[in-house]
Amino acid sequence: MSSEFGNILRVSVFGQSHGDAVGVLMDGLPAGETIDLAELQAFLERRRAKPDGLSTTRAESDTPRFLSGLQNGRTCGFPLCAVLENKNQRSGDYASLENKPRPGHADYTAFVKWRGFADMRGGGHFSGRLTAPLCVAGGIAKQILARRGVYVGAHLRRVGGVSDAPFPVLPTPDLLARVAAKPFPVLDDAAGERMIETIAQARKDCDSVGGVVECAATGFPAGIGGALFGGLESRISFAVFGIPAVKGVEFGEGFHAAELRGSRNNDPFTVRNGTVVTETNHCGGILGGISDGMPLVFRAAFKPTPSIGKPQNTVNLSTMTPDVLAVSGRHDPCVAHRAVPVVEAVTACVLLDALLEQGE
Amino acid sequence: MSSEFGNILRVSVFGQSHGDAVGVLMDGLPAGETIDLAELQAFLERRRAKPDGLSTTRAESDTPRFLSGLQNGRTCGFPLCAVLENKNQRSGDYASLENKPRPGHADYTAFVKWRGFADMRGGGHFSGRLTAPLCVAGGIAKQILARRGVYVGAHLRRVGGVSDAPFPVLPTPDLLARVAAKPFPVLDDAAGERMIETIAQARKDCDSVGGVVECAATGFPAGIGGALFGGLESRISFAVFGIPAVKGVEFGEGFHAAELRGSRNNDPFTVRNGTVVTETNHCGGILGGISDGMPLVFRAAFKPTPSIGKPQNTVNLSTMTPDVLAVSGRHDPCVAHRAVPVVEAVTACVLLDALLEQGE
Amino acid sequence: MSSEFGNILRVSVFGQSHGDAVGVLMDGLPAGETIDLAELQAFLERRRAKPDGLSTTRAESDTPRFLSGLQNGRTCGFPLCAVLENKNQRSGDYASLENKPRPGHADYTAFVKWRGFADMRGGGHFSGRLTAPLCVAGGIAKQILARRGVYVGAHLRRVGGVSDAPFPVLPTPDLLARVAAKPFPVLDDAAGERMIETIAQARKDCDSVGGVVECAATGFPAGIGGALFGGLESRISFAVFGIPAVKGVEFGEGFHAAELRGSRNNDPFTVRNGTVVTETNHCGGILGGISDGMPLVFRAAFKPTPSIGKPQNTVNLSTMTPDVLAVSGRHDPCVAHRAVPVVEAVTACVLLDALLEQGE
Amino acid sequence: MSSEFGNILRVSVFGQSHGDAVGVLMDGLPAGETIDLAELQAFLERRRAKPDGLSTTRAESDTPRFLSGLQNGRTCGFPLCAVLENKNQRSGDYASLENKPRPGHADYTAFVKWRGFADMRGGGHFSGRLTAPLCVAGGIAKQILARRGVYVGAHLRRVGGVSDAPFPVLPTPDLLARVAAKPFPVLDDAAGERMIETIAQARKDCDSVGGVVECAATGFPAGIGGALFGGLESRISFAVFGIPAVKGVEFGEGFHAAELRGSRNNDPFTVRNGTVVTETNHCGGILGGISDGMPLVFRAAFKPTPSIGKPQNTVNLSTMTPDVLAVSGRHDPCVAHRAVPVVEAVTACVLLDALLEQGE
Repeated sequence: MSSEFGNILRVSVFGQSHGDAVGVLMDGLPAGETIDLAELQAFLERRRAKPDGLSTTRAESDTPRFLSGLQNGRTCGFPLCAVLENKNQRSGDYASLENKPRPGHADYTAFVKWRGFADMRGGGHFSGRLTAPLCVAGGIAKQILARRGVYVGAHLRRVGGVSDAPFPVLPTPDLLARVAAKPFPVLDDAAGERMIETIAQARKDCDSVGGVVECAATGFPAGIGGALFGGLESRISFAVFGIPAVKGVEFGEGFHAAELRGSRNNDPFTVRNGTVVTETNHCGGILGGISDGMPLVFRAAFKPTPSIGKPQNTVNLSTMTPDVLAVSGRHDPCVAHRAVPVVEAVTACVLLDALLEQGE
Repeated sequence: MSSEFGNILRVSVFGQSHGDAVGVLMDGLPAGETIDLAELQAFLERRRAKPDGLSTTRAESDTPRFLSGLQNGRTCGFPLCAVLENKNQRSGDYASLENKPRPGHADYTAFVKWRGFADMRGGGHFSGRLTAPLCVAGGIAKQILARRGVYVGAHLRRVGGVSDAPFPVLPTPDLLARVAAKPFPVLDDAAGERMIETIAQARKDCDSVGGVVECAATGFPAGIGGALFGGLESRISFAVFGIPAVKGVEFGEGFHAAELRGSRNNDPFTVRNGTVVTETNHCGGILGGISDGMPLVFRAAFKPTPSIGKPQNTVNLSTMTPDVLAVSGRHDPCVAHRAVPVVEAVTACVLLDALLEQGE
Repeated sequence: MSSEFGNILRVSVFGQSHGDAVGVLMDGLPAGETIDLAELQAFLERRRAKPDGLSTTRAESDTPRFLSGLQNGRTCGFPLCAVLENKNQRSGDYASLENKPRPGHADYTAFVKWRGFADMRGGGHFSGRLTAPLCVAGGIAKQILARRGVYVGAHLRRVGGVSDAPFPVLPTPDLLARVAAKPFPVLDDAAGERMIETIAQARKDCDSVGGVVECAATGFPAGIGGALFGGLESRISFAVFGIPAVKGVEFGEGFHAAELRGSRNNDPFTVRNGTVVTETNHCGGILGGISDGMPLVFRAAFKPTPSIGKPQNTVNLSTMTPDVLAVSGRHDPCVAHRAVPVVEAVTACVLLDALLEQGE
Repeated sequence: MSSEFGNILRVSVFGQSHGDAVGVLMDGLPAGETIDLAELQAFLERRRAKPDGLSTTRAESDTPRFLSGLQNGRTCGFPLCAVLENKNQRSGDYASLENKPRPGHADYTAFVKWRGFADMRGGGHFSGRLTAPLCVAGGIAKQILARRGVYVGAHLRRVGGVSDAPFPVLPTPDLLARVAAKPFPVLDDAAGERMIETIAQARKDCDSVGGVVECAATGFPAGIGGALFGGLESRISFAVFGIPAVKGVEFGEGFHAAELRGSRNNDPFTVRNGTVVTETNHCGGILGGISDGMPLVFRAAFKPTPSIGKPQNTVNLSTMTPDVLAVSGRHDPCVAHRAVPVVEAVTACVLLDALLEQGE
């Protein structure tokens, strides 16, 4: 129930930040799919912390070991389990947090739910560390999707008050690849520079900042999804809200659609190369929960990292008295830029699942 | 897979707009719960079209017949099936749409998915009509939740460019009840007047307008939910995106959190009456996917009704040539105000499910 | 969780024996499938009580009303809901049972589980009456399967100590049709006569008798199912044990395989018409949970009807003192012969689900 | 979908016989449960091949490494992943099988399903090796159940034509423990000797033999389970049929009930120590899919090991011509005796799941 998503392709992540290892189990992958491990590793590198002052200085090698599901570099029809060892923990950093929950973090709610038994060292199972195995799953799904003509890509749409350009109506696979290759995943590098400054300034202030990731999938066929609770929005949002720190998800115009009139928000149909298409894509490629053949486009809002150096009010859970906390240790002043491949990963898993469900 | 949500409490809706009936099946309700049918009917009335010029003029009686699951006014442990007959269809209105998909509507995607076999009269299974059985389910869930001290309420937060006041940090059950009793569900009636004008103007212009619904649940205990894909945000958003026309969901500060710094977005803990609480509620009552005991708060964005009288470009699917469509028939110029109880309904089902899963 | 089975095709039954109606919801049917209602009705007749002294004298019309999912006689892609009204209840017959649970029946366990709130009139949701909507679902699945070359049939393999002949290694669709057309569904009519006597004698003795149903499916393609918990045996047995009174399920040689040696139980492979086949079918068409292209064959054991006229020891739940009960009212002295189409029905739903999951 | 079972407690196994490792993921365990690793290891030893001439000579150390879910010897609320490395493979033994499927084995059906891509070395994911991680999961579930007063045990009820005594009506936890401690798990050691001879003789004849395992659970509370497809029989049989080689499952009298009359098969109720009990237990502790407070009792039939030394007819899949196969390599002449703890393991997982679902 808790760490799993998908219908035909089920993806389960496991592990705690400071446990032995984190990993992922994928059940339902098609057989005979070649997995390019170098390409997968390159994808995982996009998520890793870089020594750029914008991220935590904890560095993990993040090279998955495949315990099952692969033979001679190809999926073999059986569940695939991939493991990433945890090597660089510093649990000491967290010792003081046991009784003083960090504001904005799961410390307190986990304490209530598991009555103190949860392994919350380093954020436990809530840690951003869990996005590494998610990227293993998603990197595999992306390779299988690409072989079917479906490309998933994302960029950092906003950090604090700074905005990148939006995706064009028809993002090409080439554009998605170019953004993915950048050290800082934006369309407009000047905007990217300002975002970097924003993050660096937050860090300097012992604070953090939030952001928005925009994700697109091209080549996804029309007619996939379903009415009501079978809709693609439901399935994608379920998975994306499972990424730590996500607090909002919107498709196409999203919240902005609420301000529009129908005549402005509807996407008129037309014919191009014998196929029905729309000139605009306000609906984000989904009508009635079903893909319309246009690019799928959505955005996910990430809250600012809750772990900050600034002193904050909290409560000592042993004494139930007010206390003050200044979080030390290695923390990202922003998670949104590192979340870009994570959003791609989770989306790729959902889209592959939806395709497999249709027998495609 | 398609018209169902929930884990322990599973809710399935069925029916087409112009079929014989619509209905809902609830499997997993606790036994021995009294259902006040008058209270349920009053809840259903909130969703019904009113002769106020803001809604379709199609009127349905919307009195459910219970085929199973109730005995002597109490749930009896077995699946509850409730049916609402369809009586007031005018399928002739839709005959012309068969070959000319409405922009912004599921006509085209349903055509692709079901190769012309879908019963799309009146919007078929995508119709807003399906929100009536959802409200039957949600109205029942609300009564059971209230008995456990959990109250779910919503208001219209925005229509077009007009905004209502937000919920206060601690909305009382009384406040939620007062909003529910209003003919137009807003906190600030002056804002409500401007919203009504906005909708009426859209109607006059043969157009439509979108809106945002804000929903809150008070009294929900801390410690419910789970990490990653077991999180309340995932479960709530899955269900809410299943409501027709929803294009965005955000919790607490939501997309606005992306613009905030951690020091501003975190909710400091404090102690009140021996319980850990937060002074603010930027997180919408959910940390790490788990409830923190504060009110759950989220917003859902509804796009403007796609069916509008204004001529729009479309494609004749028989001839695959461009065409023009002006939708006649009875359509709501805005669905957001009628969606207020629907959002409550779906939320109540998810929260009851989450409580039952914990054995509460 | 409770009254539902299936992955892609989900079948949910609802209703209590003496409630307003019983019914079934099918979500996930392929669109565009013609449903021959006369053929469906003929299938339902096979389950109905006949005035042959072997069954209850409660007679229901059992003509389903389709509330949704069908348009112009074809499935329309949306959930199909079919309802059978209950008209011939005599709840008075059951009034005395409220405090005195029938041995062998769910009266007592339902009382414990639902603390007295369960509607157990006429057996409530446990009643054989619920097999009527199951047959609606299964009759529809059978028609869709037949169009794909898959035929499901069953016969009464044993009643008390009397055995019918087993299915041949390769039962033809024609054979299955011929058995289905018989008033008493056996291969060997002489054995059938002895079974009828056995049932009639049990009735005369105010007693009841059990039986075994054998079910076969021909034309089911090889390669459907999966290892371990994805196996066809798991899925079929899950559904078949959901039929009231089933206490055993075995595939191919089943329990007898335990007495065999491998050299005798293995089915050697050979080639026929360019296809790999087996000469024998000890495995019941399933190896490693996956179909091998031979007929699927399994048997289900039905216990004797627990409601009998003979006095039995029970407990008065109000006083918690020993008591004696002689069940009056209309009860089948054997359910196995009427269960033959029910086993087919449930099996057809599972097999169609498994085919759909493979995109077939 | 394929290698997973459970609702609240989900158990997924992964790995191929000759891959790097096999393992299990348990999601949904209660937090704070102490796991006694020595006791777990002792349970795993019961499944291991012993140098007794009755089993394969492949020996694995079978000491699980816990990657997640445990902290300081206690469950920590997060998914538990346990891994058993594969060390003693001899894939050469299987090279000749690639084109010549073993009769009675999944070789052929896996070939069809995964078009030759399945890693079938050593039986792949179908191998008995996968029962080792199942026992890790079940051994953990057994410890948690015992803490709640529920004890699960099994014995070898039959091998070939030799039968052990059945469990008494009220097996005590002590009896279950004594059988578990025996090198050969039977109630009647003389019968056990004859079973051992039967297995040894089959081995000598380059053949194999099947068997029946009987399993009981005591202390399981009344009122757990549900009507129809929520029944305990459905859930238990689903999981037990997932164990390789199981071809039949029956509860209480099972298939024998078909031969009984109701007056003989019903279990009369009586009162003992203020609780409703039954004197007999023909129903195996389950009425209407719900536990009645008596011991749960069922049997599982295991077919003879398909891999035998005797020459058998098969087909060369490359040339599609008849061929002959004599399987070499290490194979168990009987799997039923080693399956005794596996049946316990799977049952314990299902029962714990059912308890957790009720919030117990």
